[in-house]
This record gives sequence, C-alpha cells and structure tokens, in this order.
Amino acid sequence: MELIKKYIEENKERFLNELFDLIRIPSISARPENKEDMFKATEYIKKCLLDAGADHAEVIETKGHPVIYVEKLIDPSAPTILIYGHYDVQPVEPLDEWDSDPFMPEIRDGKIFARGADDDKGQMFMHFKAFELMIQTGTLPCNVKFMIEGEEEIGSPSLKKFCIDNKKKLASDVILISDTTMIAPDIPSITVGLRGLSYMEVEVTGPNRDLHSGLYGGAVMNPINALTKMIASLTDENNYITVNGFYDDVLEVSDGERKEMAKAPFNLEEYKRSIDIDNEVGEKGYSTTERTGIRPSLDVNGIWGGYIGEGAKTVLPSKAYAKISMRLVPNQNSKKIDKLFEDHFKSIAPDGVRVEVKSLHGGEGYVSPIDTIAYQAANRACEESFGKKPIPVRSGGSIPIVSDFEDVLGIKSILLGFGLDSDAIHSPNENFPLFNFYKGIETIPLFYKYFTEMSR
Amino acid sequence: MELIKKYIEENKERFLNELFDLIRIPSISARPENKEDMFKATEYIKKCLLDAGADHAEVIETKGHPVIYVEKLIDPSAPTILIYGHYDVQPVEPLDEWDSDPFMPEIRDGKIFARGADDDKGQMFMHFKAFELMIQTGTLPCNVKFMIEGEEEIGSPSLKKFCIDNKKKLASDVILISDTTMIAPDIPSITVGLRGLSYMEVEVTGPNRDLHSGLYGGAVMNPINALTKMIASLTDENNYITVNGFYDDVLEVSDGERKEMAKAPFNLEEYKRSIDIDNEVGEKGYSTTERTGIRPSLDVNGIWGGYIGEGAKTVLPSKAYAKISMRLVPNQNSKKIDKLFEDHFKSIAPDGVRVEVKSLHGGEGYVSPIDTIAYQAANRACEESFGKKPIPVRSGGSIPIVSDFEDVLGIKSILLGFGLDSDAIHSPNENFPLFNFYKGIETIPLFYKYFTEMSR
Repeated sequence: MELIKKYIEENKERFLNELFDLIRIPSISARPENKEDMFKATEYIKKCLLDAGADHAEVIETKGHPVIYVEKLIDPSAPTILIYGHYDVQPVEPLDEWDSDPFMPEIRDGKIFARGADDDKGQMFMHFKAFELMIQTGTLPCNVKFMIEGEEEIGSPSLKKFCIDNKKKLASDVILISDTTMIAPDIPSITVGLRGLSYMEVEVTGPNRDLHSGLYGGAVMNPINALTKMIASLTDENNYITVNGFYDDVLEVSDGERKEMAKAPFNLEEYKRSIDIDNEVGEKGYSTTERTGIRPSLDVNGIWGGYIGEGAKTVLPSKAYAKISMRLVPNQNSKKIDKLFEDHFKSIAPDGVRVEVKSLHGGEGYVSPIDTIAYQAANRACEESFGKKPIPVRSGGSIPIVSDFEDVLGIKSILLGFGLDSDAIHSPNENFPLFNFYKGIETIPLFYKYFTEMSR
Repeated sequence: MELIKKYIEENKERFLNELFDLIRIPSISARPENKEDMFKATEYIKKCLLDAGADHAEVIETKGHPVIYVEKLIDPSAPTILIYGHYDVQPVEPLDEWDSDPFMPEIRDGKIFARGADDDKGQMFMHFKAFELMIQTGTLPCNVKFMIEGEEEIGSPSLKKFCIDNKKKLASDVILISDTTMIAPDIPSITVGLRGLSYMEVEVTGPNRDLHSGLYGGAVMNPINALTKMIASLTDENNYITVNGFYDDVLEVSDGERKEMAKAPFNLEEYKRSIDIDNEVGEKGYSTTERTGIRPSLDVNGIWGGYIGEGAKTVLPSKAYAKISMRLVPNQNSKKIDKLFEDHFKSIAPDGVRVEVKSLHGGEGYVSPIDTIAYQAANRACEESFGKKPIPVRSGGSIPIVSDFEDVLGIKSILLGFGLDSDAIHSPNENFPLFNFYKGIETIPLFYKYFTEMSR
C-alpha cells in the first residue's frame, strides 16, 4: 500500500499529462467526421500500454472502429484479469453550455473538465496507470489482458462479433470495468445491476412539403402536433409505459431485496438540489433509486421539426422527428422491445401522417452476483483504500456489452467505478475529480492482489 | 386593354429581369444578419418607382426595418389608390430541400422559383410594373401612393405606429394589396376574409443541466416528455382547441353564409393529392375550406430539444422548446389570446418542470364587405382580364396590418391576389407562375380604371 501511494505521488503529474493527451483526441464514435481521431486514439493507447510494460499490443480492425487488444502474461498458474474500457466519447453538443473547450482539459476546483474526463477515458486510464505501477514496482501478481473498444457510446455494434472471433485470446477469469459511479465521494460502490437499452428514432411525415400554416392550418394534420400526441400517449398518468406488452418480461424485485436496497444512503433533498428540480417524478409506487435501479423508463432524448431559428416562421412542416429510448431491466430483451415499440408506435399514428421507426441501438441489462471471489476481492480492495466497505448498487445506466461478455465468453464482470453522478457524463462540463482518479489507481492494484490470493 | 397587352408584350423580359434583381437581395426580416440587405432592397425599390415615373419617393426609418413611401399625385379631384406591399421575405430553411438557390431565381416549367417569387416580391412587383405601364402609356387615371414595408413576415411590429404618425400622408380612398391567392389558375379570387394570428414560443426547463438518461431516466421529469404532453393536450379528439376561453369571442358563421361559401369550387381529392396526404384532418363539423376560412386553428411551427444530431446520444435534456401559433377568426383579439394561452400553458405544466411563455407576434383577422365600389371595381377588372367573375374567398392566412389600416387610417383594403396555393410560399421551392405575374400586371390597370370611373 505504501509502495502504491509513493509511486502515485511521484508520478501524479505525468499521469495527468498523459491522460490529457488522450482526452485532446476528439474520438466521438457517433460522428463520421472524427474517423481519423479514432485511429489516433488507438495508436496512443497502444503505445501507452507498451511503454507501461505490456508484452504485446495490437489494433484489431472491426466493421466499425477498431479494438485494441493488449496482454502481459507472467504466470500460467496465476489467474488472468481482463480489463475492458472504451476510448470513444459522446458528442459534445450543446457546445455553448461548456465553460471550457470539451477537448482542451482544464483543472478547476480539483476536477478535470473535458469530454471523456470520466466516461471513459479518465476511468480507463486509471487501469493503464495501475498496470504501469504494478509492473514498475514489481508487484503485478497475475496475468492481464486489455480489450479497449471504440464504439461503446454507439452501442458496441462490433464487439459481440469481436468476442466470438477472439474467444480464445480473451480467455480470462474475470472482466474488470470502471465505467460506473460511486454513490458519493466517500462511499465506494460496486455496481451489481445495469439496465438494458432500446434506442429508437421515429419520423412522422404529414404533407409532402412544408406548408403555410395560415393557408392550411386547421385542415391538414401537422406532423409535430401528431408526434407530440403520439409521444404523450407512451406514458400514462402514473408514468407507466403504455407500449403494448412492454412489461411482460419485467421481473419484479422482491420486497426483501427492495428493503435491502433502501438501506443505501440516499438524500432526496440533496438529489433535487443538485439538479435544481422542485419535484422528483417517476413511476408510481417506486422510490427514486428504484425508478432508475430496478424499473424501466422511457425518455425522449431529442426532438426536432419545423422552424427552429430565431423569430417566427408560420410553417406547417412536412416532417417531425424524435429519438426515444427505453431503459430496460434484466430479463427484458431489447430486440423484442424494439419490435413492440415499432408496432405500437405505428399503431397509434393518427390520420393524415405516415410513420417510420428504426432502432439506433440497444443492449441487454445485467445483474451480477455478490458471492463470487471477484466481488469479495473488490470489496476488500475498496475497504483498504477508502477505509470503508463498498455498497452494492443497481445503476440506471447501460453497458450492453456486459451481458454479451457473459453469454459469449462465459466470464462475469466486476463493475468497479470511481465516477460520481455529478460528473455530468454525456453532458456539457463533464468532469472527473482528481481525488477519484488517484483513488482508482490506488484501489485497482489491491483488487489484483486480493483476486490473485483468493483464486489460489 | 390592347394597349396594356402590347406594353406588357414589349417589356416582358425587362420586367422579369428587374424582378430578379430584387429577388436576389436576401431581405429576410427575421435574421439580424440580413440587416444590410433590407437597406439594399429599399434603395432598389425607391429607384424602381422613381424610374417608372413617381413624383416623390422616400425611405422612412422605423424602430425596425424602414418603410418606402412613394407618390404620384396627378389630379386632386380624382380618387387616390394606396398600394401596400412588403419587400421582406421568410427564412429559407430547410435549405437542402430547395432544388435551386432560393436567392438565384430560376425559371422552370413556366414558373419563377425563388424565395419571394410570389410572397411578396413577385406580387408587389406587378403593381410597380402596372404603375409604370399606366404612366408610360398615358393612362394613369388617378392618384397613387405606395407604402412598402419590410416587416410583414415578422408581424409588422412598426407599421401601426408608422400609420399613426403618417396618417395624413397616407390618406386615400382604398388600399390595394396583392399578397393572397386565387382558388385555381383560371379562377380569379378576391379575398374577403383573413385570419388573425397569435404566435408564441414556449420553453420548458427540467433539471439544470443535461443528464445521463440511464442514471436519471425514470426518476426525473424529462422536459421533452413534458412538452409533448402539454402540447398534446392543447387539442382534443375532435380537434377543438382546449385553451381555456379560446372560443369565447369566436363568431359562428351563419348556415346561410356557409352554404354560400360551399359553392366555391373545391376538389378535396385534388387537394389531398397536391400535398400527398391520405386524409384531411381538422375540427369536427366543418369542411376543409371552413376549417381554414372561418375557424381558428393551432399549429406547432417548430419544436426542438435534446440531441438532434446523427446517431444515438443518451441524454435527458435540461430544456425543450416549441413555437406554437394560433390562427384566429375575426372578433378574436390576439392580445387576449396571447394571455389566455400563456395562462393555460403554464397551468398545465406537470411537476418537475418550469415553463416560460412569450409572444413572438400577432395580429387581428379581417372581413371585407363586398358591396363597395372597390370590390365592384376589382370584380369588373378580373372579369375583363380573366374572362370570368372572381370568387370572394375567406383565406386562412393572416395579414395582421389590414385590420390596423381600417382602425388607424379608416381605409378599407381590397385583397386582389394572383398567387396559387401551390406556390409554396414560406416553403422550399417557392414559385410564381409567369402567367399569373403577367396576368396581374394586366388586371391592375383595369382596377384603376373602373375604380376611378365608379368613384366619380
């Protein structure tokens, strides 16, 4: 432990500078314009891990953005830990709400501000530096593999096939992922549940061209009016989702488990204050943490149509669009939900409009057992570095590939995240506290140590 | 009549070239970036009318875009016709739906394609050229004044004050306006009714920043979800508008008048085919022409919020916006409707969001009597040039300033328009058939002639 702290202390500035170099590469997976940057990011990471002491590193092409595979195999009798992370980031819009350039990392109030500062460049980089630390201090206790992808933010379309094609290469005893949050800055957490995702885009077409809203208004169905009615009907007054068959596969969580979950510290007033809302709103009969942890949800992620510039334009538009996503709970199948949504949404189209629905991405939820060696090792690692036991939490987010890892590779994942809800991932002013960054680097080697010890 | 036709024939190419020069000036009143172009347009028009033979022309500043005032006074005992028009045009978005540059006029299929080709540069220019024609052929029978404004497309915010300040200067016997449509290419029409307008913008705010839709989705009211519910509730299943008190001042049109209106030629199948819709949709109990002619309506003209770029971004946005306008019938007051809408819209905001409402512009409806000399003169002019009697129609559009003209100046307006519904005004590929352009130039001098004769 002293050795770990000393190494971090002596190298902390360099760690940060190296992370900043990675952050400065705008590797936005959703934007074709940034294709070149994706390659730059892979080259940077490959070099970073080879410099740290990896035996082998390669950039492997996929149909989409490439995957970086790296290994350091030291002892066939020792266990193997596979680190998963992603070098791609979310788009940065709306740009004018950022206080600094999203790709020029800045430290303010003890936090790194930049796109990817937390998700996932910052959290992934903790693993790179913990890896370096163990090699440089001669304390690496087991074999390590890295699988770093570039399509997490667009639903990892190529990674399942990558796993199938490289099953042997990826063989390992546990997958360790830092892409989740802690309950609070001083409360370490291990994520034991993730939601699935079904992300759709809909297009509603009324007349074949934009019309003058005076000459036609009142006689022709306006596709925006229609779209608002359709979306409004997707949830009822209790915030239940009305898509036909939506809840068929939802497993209710037992009262006992709900009681257990309710023990996790949660301050509703602080929650509301942190995002400046007067009232929390959600599915009737469930608490705020349950609404994101164990229940599905439906959000419009974007909507657009008609004239959205300055001033008044009296148009009755031809088209209106929305991006609508549903978070799913374990046992719901995203492909099935895609289909249910499409059928339902088309069925509620009013007279006078035509509707198209397509799936943009999706993935399954995940529940992790807590009686495994890996969970216990993470538990001990956190206890030692934070001075308190971590809390198992069900996150509302989705890392769809985690359920694929189990299906394809047969390996369980440990979700040991060091982010905070206030890190504003996917939003303007994404940030990552320096405390968390260094605490992650400190905790990871302890996980390696206990996992190796307990596996023998 | 022969004289008129001969002059048009000899000058038709020059007329078109001069109109094109005006169209090429992108005088979009809603865009501050185009301020310089507004001045260019006024200078062009001033020169055009002086060249045609006007005695006096001036560009008069207002708080907004300037007004051009021009006069040719030939005989104190003759009547005076005041021509109203506007040199400003609508924005051109969505640009990618135009088949040619909106400000580079092109002739295709016998039509001029450009922003402003009809509304109102094309229609206004017919008056300029008819004026030139009468002067050059020595047939101008009366006094003429022009009042050409630059803010019609943003609700004429300065023109009422302009009329109050210049009441004496504007004194005349009738106001002649070409900014409306004909029922069909071969059916001349005189517009005897216009709708009023109340155009609002709403802003719905949920959390104070964009959130991750996984971490927060289901527990926090999404402002887009909220906005869709609020807008959806503004009209009921019969397409009645639900804003409290909205219909209080609506005057029902008598069955007799409705029967009379129903005699105007209207082909519903052709109407639906022209805009490619399967079903017409509107207020229960009224026909398509009634829904735009004598009934109010509510349209969302624009909506936006969240992520609207390519791909999938899992954001629960902080804000959502919409532009919502209501067309009003005569006797509804736009200011009163603004207030009713604001109160109603705020009252339906669900828990968890805050709402702001502002009025972007508005104006009153208008009904014109048909037993006036001016109407009869227009009737005879159309009958002579088209070979058939014009039909009185109630248009769904709004020219809010027309009711102000009556209130402030005490002068009735004649709405003698030569556009077609298919001209796509306010839309991509706005156009104006050459036939209509020249037919307008031919008809206008006949109006001057009959109006002068009948006024003596």
